[in-house]
Amino acid sequence: MTALPRKSVLLLSGGMDSTTLLWWMRDRGISEIHTVSIDYGQRHAVELESSASLSRLAGVNSHRCLEVDLRQIGGNPLTEIGRPVPAAEQERQTLTVVPFRNMLFITVAAAWAETWGCKDLFISPVRDDFQIYRDCRREFYDMLEKTLCLGATRQADYRIHTPFVEKWKDEIVSIGLNLGVPYAKTHTCYEGKRPACGRCDACVERINAFRANRTVDPLAYEIDVDWTTSRIV
Amino acid sequence: MTALPRKSVLLLSGGMDSTTLLWWMRDRGISEIHTVSIDYGQRHAVELESSASLSRLAGVNSHRCLEVDLRQIGGNPLTEIGRPVPAAEQERQTLTVVPFRNMLFITVAAAWAETWGCKDLFISPVRDDFQIYRDCRREFYDMLEKTLCLGATRQADYRIHTPFVEKWKDEIVSIGLNLGVPYAKTHTCYEGKRPACGRCDACVERINAFRANRTVDPLAYEIDVDWTTSRIV
Repeated sequence: MTALPRKSVLLLSGGMDSTTLLWWMRDRGISEIHTVSIDYGQRHAVELESSASLSRLAGVNSHRCLEVDLRQIGGNPLTEIGRPVPAAEQERQTLTVVPFRNMLFITVAAAWAETWGCKDLFISPVRDDFQIYRDCRREFYDMLEKTLCLGATRQADYRIHTPFVEKWKDEIVSIGLNLGVPYAKTHTCYEGKRPACGRCDACVERINAFRANRTVDPLAYEIDVDWTTSRIV
Repeated sequence: MTALPRKSVLLLSGGMDSTTLLWWMRDRGISEIHTVSIDYGQRHAVELESSASLSRLAGVNSHRCLEVDLRQIGGNPLTEIGRPVPAAEQERQTLTVVPFRNMLFITVAAAWAETWGCKDLFISPVRDDFQIYRDCRREFYDMLEKTLCLGATRQADYRIHTPFVEKWKDEIVSIGLNLGVPYAKTHTCYEGKRPACGRCDACVERINAFRANRTVDPLAYEIDVDWTTSRIV
């Protein structure tokens, strides 16, 4: 476990994992937290509203929305309106990959952070992610960290903190419930729906994480969810 | 010297170095060249026009303009209208650094390239650059290359080719003159002026590179340039 910084930037999507990380950082006593959300042309822009309101609720030092338009990259259903999001049962998560998304997000956040002298960046990949998404593995962040150090305007020790990278989503929920994370205000659904669709990959993962904790997710879903089952769908 | 790929993406700013690289790639027989220019909110947007017209002139397979708005990052005179560009004599190049600019450009180009299966990226840092710009050193590109390999959607061997990284600007001009690069159509001036200002750091470097080759730069300048002197200003 590395020492925690005084001054930090958190990539906050307003989802379950990054919001839990925000509450975790606050709990750990990081005195200065600046949240960044990325407007990448996502069709679920509701994510940006969640990020802003959760930042206010957490009382962060600043919240900033940075723009990296991934629609121009093309090829994935998270940004293309016409392309259907794969349901959890059928096509798996690789179809929802935006190439180098986390790398772009970290780099643009690092660029902004450099202008005011912050070198500590937090992001919330979890263990469930890195089974599929290669840019959610710590190995990748180690290399990205070294690249930032070499590419910075002046010699500097950039750190990319990923305290949840070895944790499963159900552990995240467990941590968050203990910290009082307002999960009803977070956002997950790939479809960008409120109430959440309850069927897409992201919703199903979330529902199962709450089920594993024998807890009802306070988020509104457009389907009836059976919270008593422990069956992982 | 590494083997050259068949299919490639070149980051083309339309300046002296990247344009020479385009002609060099063509000369080396790379059969498929796709140029990318980045609209980063530069005040010298004339660079984007140069890039497009030079791409046409070179007969590339495709030309694409990708957008990464660096104005939102702030803190540098290349994107901020109100901030004066430092004259060559006074403040040196560090003031014209946009944090992680090349890293963002390479990453967004790599993301686009991934969607159609290209893993070979060309960029044109030169030796004069890496005295000041840390993200122009090969050491940095080696690490960035490894990061791309680790972060790609699927296991892949990304290569960032920097064939000019050990060459000085006067060597670039020498190579380009031999290859018939249409230097009158390239663009350099930090001020974004046409005719070029002849006073900013970029102009002065360019003028000196032509002087070292005992050649007159065919580009139009708004000041009278003495091409006979070998004095480095």
